[in-house]
This record gives sequence, C-alpha cells and structure tokens, in this order.
Amino acid sequence: MVRNLLKKNKIVYLMTDFGVDNFYVSEMKSVIYSLCREARIVDITHSITPFDVHEAAFLLGMIYPFYPGGGIFLVVVDPGVGGERGEIIVRTQERLFVGPDNGVFSYVYEKEKKFSVYRIRRELFEGVSSTFHGRDIFAPVAGRLLAGTSLRSLGRKSDEFVRFQVHYPEVEEQEGAVLIRGRVMFVDKFGNLISNITFSDLKREGVKETYIRVGRTVIREISRSFSDVPAGKPVAYIGSHGYLEIGVNKGNAQSSLGAGKGSILEVVMVM
Amino acid sequence: MVRNLLKKNKIVYLMTDFGVDNFYVSEMKSVIYSLCREARIVDITHSITPFDVHEAAFLLGMIYPFYPGGGIFLVVVDPGVGGERGEIIVRTQERLFVGPDNGVFSYVYEKEKKFSVYRIRRELFEGVSSTFHGRDIFAPVAGRLLAGTSLRSLGRKSDEFVRFQVHYPEVEEQEGAVLIRGRVMFVDKFGNLISNITFSDLKREGVKETYIRVGRTVIREISRSFSDVPAGKPVAYIGSHGYLEIGVNKGNAQSSLGAGKGSILEVVMVM
Amino acid sequence: MVRNLLKKNKIVYLMTDFGVDNFYVSEMKSVIYSLCREARIVDITHSITPFDVHEAAFLLGMIYPFYPGGGIFLVVVDPGVGGERGEIIVRTQERLFVGPDNGVFSYVYEKEKKFSVYRIRRELFEGVSSTFHGRDIFAPVAGRLLAGTSLRSLGRKSDEFVRFQVHYPEVEEQEGAVLIRGRVMFVDKFGNLISNITFSDLKREGVKETYIRVGRTVIREISRSFSDVPAGKPVAYIGSHGYLEIGVNKGNAQSSLGAGKGSILEVVMVM
Repeated sequence: MVRNLLKKNKIVYLMTDFGVDNFYVSEMKSVIYSLCREARIVDITHSITPFDVHEAAFLLGMIYPFYPGGGIFLVVVDPGVGGERGEIIVRTQERLFVGPDNGVFSYVYEKEKKFSVYRIRRELFEGVSSTFHGRDIFAPVAGRLLAGTSLRSLGRKSDEFVRFQVHYPEVEEQEGAVLIRGRVMFVDKFGNLISNITFSDLKREGVKETYIRVGRTVIREISRSFSDVPAGKPVAYIGSHGYLEIGVNKGNAQSSLGAGKGSILEVVMVM
Repeated sequence: MVRNLLKKNKIVYLMTDFGVDNFYVSEMKSVIYSLCREARIVDITHSITPFDVHEAAFLLGMIYPFYPGGGIFLVVVDPGVGGERGEIIVRTQERLFVGPDNGVFSYVYEKEKKFSVYRIRRELFEGVSSTFHGRDIFAPVAGRLLAGTSLRSLGRKSDEFVRFQVHYPEVEEQEGAVLIRGRVMFVDKFGNLISNITFSDLKREGVKETYIRVGRTVIREISRSFSDVPAGKPVAYIGSHGYLEIGVNKGNAQSSLGAGKGSILEVVMVM
Repeated sequence: MVRNLLKKNKIVYLMTDFGVDNFYVSEMKSVIYSLCREARIVDITHSITPFDVHEAAFLLGMIYPFYPGGGIFLVVVDPGVGGERGEIIVRTQERLFVGPDNGVFSYVYEKEKKFSVYRIRRELFEGVSSTFHGRDIFAPVAGRLLAGTSLRSLGRKSDEFVRFQVHYPEVEEQEGAVLIRGRVMFVDKFGNLISNITFSDLKREGVKETYIRVGRTVIREISRSFSDVPAGKPVAYIGSHGYLEIGVNKGNAQSSLGAGKGSILEVVMVM
C-alpha cells in the first residue's frame, strides 16, 4: 500500500539538526531531485538540538500521524555518523522512514502495530564520506525510493534495531484522584510548553476538578484555546497534536512561568 | 480573471509568525500538497513578530504588489485562534488572500479599488483543532482553491470584516515647506529601516532641499542606492518596494543610528 | 552540454546574505516561478555574513562540485548593488552561475579549466530598482535561462571580470617535514571548523607523524570521523567536501577550542 501512495505523492519530509545557516540540507535536496525530478521536498525543521536523538524521536512520534499518508520521513540526527551504528528504512502501513539506526524512530515503533525494519545495503554506497551520510546514503535512498526502486533492493529486512525507552508519563491512581506526572518535551517559538501527556491520558470519567501544575503555577482547568483566558494569563489546553500544552494567551509561557524543556508537569484529577 | 491565473500558476505564498525551528509550517505544506500535488509553495517569511498582526499587515501591503498576479497569499498571524474571530478569503483582481479576519489584510483593502471578502464556511471544517487553524482550515482552503474548488463553495460573500486604521504618515504643508512625519515599520536583516513614507508622498514639484531626520541623524538628500555614499555613512533612498528607507552603506543603520521599529522619521522638503 | 542538462533539470540553487526573516528571497522565487513554472528552487543558505563576498566565494567554491551537474547557482551577496559593478553569467562545462561581478565566483574560476563569462545585457532590464538586483536582474536572468532563453541573448561574452586572490594555504617544505599553514574559513552549526586545507594538500608519501594545531590545541592524527575519538575530544578529519576540518565529538569545537573564522590552522607532517 505504501508503495502506491509513494508513487503517487512522491513527497519527502526532512528533519535534521543541521540548521539553515549552511549548505548541508541543500546538498541532500540536490541529490533527491537528481534521482526524482518530480519530488516534493518539505522541511519539517532543521533546528533539532544538535545530536539530540531523543528530542527528534519524540517530535517525530508526535507529529508524523498528522502528515497525509504516502510520504517518506528522512530524519538525520546522527551523532554516531561514521561509527558503528547502522542505517535503516522503516516501513509502516502508510509511510516510510529513513535514517540512522540510533533509536530516532523509537516512538514510531511504539505507535505502530505493524512495521518492518530494513537495514540499508551498505555495499550500494561505496566510497561515501564518513561524516555526511545525510547526503551520501540517506538522501540517495530516499531519492531512489521516490523514483520507484523497491525497498527490498535497497535494504534487508531485519529484526535487530535500536529502540530506546520512550518517556511515558507516570500515572498514579489513588482513591478519588489520579495523579499524572509528565514532562515538557519541547518548547515552540511562542514559548508554548508541549508535554508528553496525551489527550487519552486525561480522558477519565467522573472528573470533578482538574489541576495542572508546572513550576509554581497551578492552572485549574483545561481550556479549549488560548483565547479562553485573558491576555497574559496561563492556559492549559490540548494542543493540535493531542498533547497537553501550557501557554500564555498572547504571551510566552516559557519566560513567564520559568519552565522549559525537561520541566515536570503534574495533573491532578479529582473524581 | 484571478481563477484562470490561479489555475495556471498554482502558487501559494506563506507568511506566518510560526518560526522555522518547529514543525507547524511543514504541516501546512503537507496539507496543501495533499490537495494539489502540482502546487508551488513559497515561504515569504515565518519570522513575523509573534502575534503582531499590524506588522504582518504592513509588510503584506508593501510587498504583495511585487509578486506576479495569480497567486494565493496564505497569512497566518492569528493571536485569536480558537476564539470569536472569523476566517476569510479576500479576492482582488489578480490575487487571493486567505487568513483570519483580524485586520491582517487592512493594507490590501486600502490599496485595492475593488475587492470581495468571503467568510469561510466553517461547516466544511468540522472537528478541527482549536489552536492550529493554519493546518486545519487555512491550508485546506488554499489547497482546495489551487485544486480548482470554487471560491463560492468555500465561502460566503460578506460586507462585514475587520479593518483597522492603517498608519499613513502625517503631512504638514507650510509656506515654502512640507513636513512629513512617518515611522519605521520594519527593520531588515541588514539593519535597513523601512518607513511608511512612500515615493508618492515625496514626489513634489520645486523642491530645493530635502532633509531626512531619524533620531539624531540628519541626512541631506535622497540617494539612488547605498553606494552613493561612502562606506559607513547613512543613506536615505527609495527602497525596492517604493518606500523611503534609511541604511548605512556596508553597515547597519539600526545599530549605528540607534533607531528601530517604531522610531519617528521626519522629512522636511524646502521649496 | 550545460544547456541540455539545464533543460532537463530546471534547477536553481540560491545563496544570499538576505536572511530568512524577511521577504527578499521569496520575491526572487516568485519571479523565477513566473518565468518557469517547472523550476526546482533549492536554498543553499541565506545566512552568508552580510556583504561578505569572500565568505560566499569560498563556500561556493567548496561545495558546488558536490551538486549534480546541470544547475544554475544564483548567488546574491552584493554590497555594491546600484553602483558600478557589473552583472554576469559564468558558464562552466556543467553549470551556470549568475550574480554580481564582484569576485564572488573567484574560486569557481580557480577550479575550472574552461569557463566563459557573459556580461548581462543591462538594456534588457530597464527601470529596475537600485537596491534589489536579486529580484530585478538576477532572478529574471535565472528564470529565463531555465525557460530556455539562450545565454547569448542574455549576455555578451567578455574577458573582463573581477577575480580576487583566493586564500590557498601556505606550504613550507623542510628537510624531513612539511608545514602547511591554513585558516578557518567557515564554522558550521555544530561548531566544526572548516579550513582551506584540502585532502590533496595533505596527500604526501612517507608521512610518519602528523600534528594539527589550532590555537592551543594539538591533535596528533587525522581521523576518519567524529566517533574515532571519545565524546568531548577534539578530532581532525577530512570533511565531506574534501577539506580538513576540526570538530569535537558530540561537542562544539568553536566554543571548546576558542577558535573561529579566521583562526590559523597548522599541519606539520614529519617524514
């Protein structure tokens, strides 16, 4: 199924820690276009914290279901480039993922019921650089997949791959109350704090009161949107990817509330 | 007329305050491509000051006439997302504009003799998020328009829309002199100060001397380009969009002259 | 040959000092698409240090051979815009380069055995702005070239063009040793120091020991990749463009080693 979608869409999404103040990303794109002129290339972001595989993995896991099926996610956050780590293609029902085998797809493995991992045939990529596999291995693989080369000819199916422990929130059920302890996983440009607590974690019956605490701030309900509170006030809401977020209406929660990536977020629901 | 141009060009220009260090823009693009594979998507900028509808409105008004006709401007600077503000499509003779009805198109209304405003039919977008209408309403509307869906099926023509007072410079005519008082509306990466005083404001007959003042700096003529003054010296010139700008040749006017966004700019023309 | 490649690929690579927090680049793209709807446009970077023609020239020279043949490099780092400097198209066997005649293609001239320079016919671009030739001259030239307009109709072949002295490393041959003194030309987002010493400079027979010095740091060998040294340790390696680079495994060489753009890099090879 993914193959037909791919053939029709020919779209690749890029996520790296390369930044945009240099030329690395453009070299990857030039390779992709040279292999598939009809490619659509969309930058997700190139501002992943350098070498932060865990950050990239969480963000990818949060957002990928919101992209239409039939695309390739090319993820290059690769502190181990040139070392022992392998290179893989992950196939799910509707998508392909290409990148280093360093755990960056761990949240994808969690979310998908069925997926296959293919180790890229290194022998197809002789004489490549030791420091820029984004250009020399991953982009060529993505370009060939877009151009119609079969997955099997590019990789060997494998049961061995790196999968790290993902950060689920801790849930403590008490009599008449539930305590959920998560953390801030990402802060966006507006200063909104995106946590790892999901909509489903919060879906309980018979909840009478809800308290959300981050740092010294306590918020007493989950709102629908920023504008449900006055300007300058903190607001908890389910963000557009289904995760609990803390913002400040027309303000910046990170700077106002003194919280940031890694901060603990607690939700108490009283039944 | 706009419809035929659109059909031929299939181009959309994006302006947001989302930044590029996250994934919001890419989600909008993925939606557009899924609705119209042949789309051309051009980023104007994603660095509008967060929530600054006035900044976005001015910049859009300044630059849009310089883009070839037949495109869609998708503008998402949307502090009121999820609240009461509406969503609109603006049609001018050669262009479409899609975004929140918060005044962000006010300068377009000023510049166009004829335009129509359509309120987007919200019933077409059930179950959308409350915080990311860029992905859930505006991008789908742009994508459908590119794909050929008629404006009328997406929106209802309306005479009610938000239009704020635009910032025109003040002009004081005196005997033998004209005083124009404008302000710096935007500072570009080079530190050039872009004002709201236009070429037409300055076009007067019989002008013998011109003085331009910003902060403590007085410039005694309007030059053609940076290189008309020595390196390091301030220069006033008509920028590439027809507005009076202050720069420093091979330098940075913002830091050298101690002026910035909001600073007053005065022009005295002596007849 | 370049013409056929161009016709097939229709790809243009952009390098400017415009930044991405404004609208200049998008205006150039809108012009290119309006002249050639099928264009592929790839941003190399827009973060060249403002007005730094030497930086842009070095980077372009380092990277352009790694892009597939048959593209146009559109380079706008143009402190002399509106002044006396000319506008040129450079043709090499497989590529075209479009930009101001200010030396920004000097490294291309060094690397290519055969190339031709065409002065753009200014009479084709009447009434253009004096400050934004990127939009008003260079993008239209690139767009027309992509659309199939002949080079000759856009420019006149010329033997006069600006070419500045490129920065080669100094090589001192001594008995039993070679000393190479280069400098750091660019620092990427990871803090890797990219020098102007190439793989060929270092290729000597009978080398027993190699020392690389930058600031107070001495590195005793050239490694294959970051992961050849422990995390946090400095590493010298041949980067993915064939130049000697200094990095820190999973760290930042610029901040750890107190070196940056312009720093001296010395290599001693003992035979």
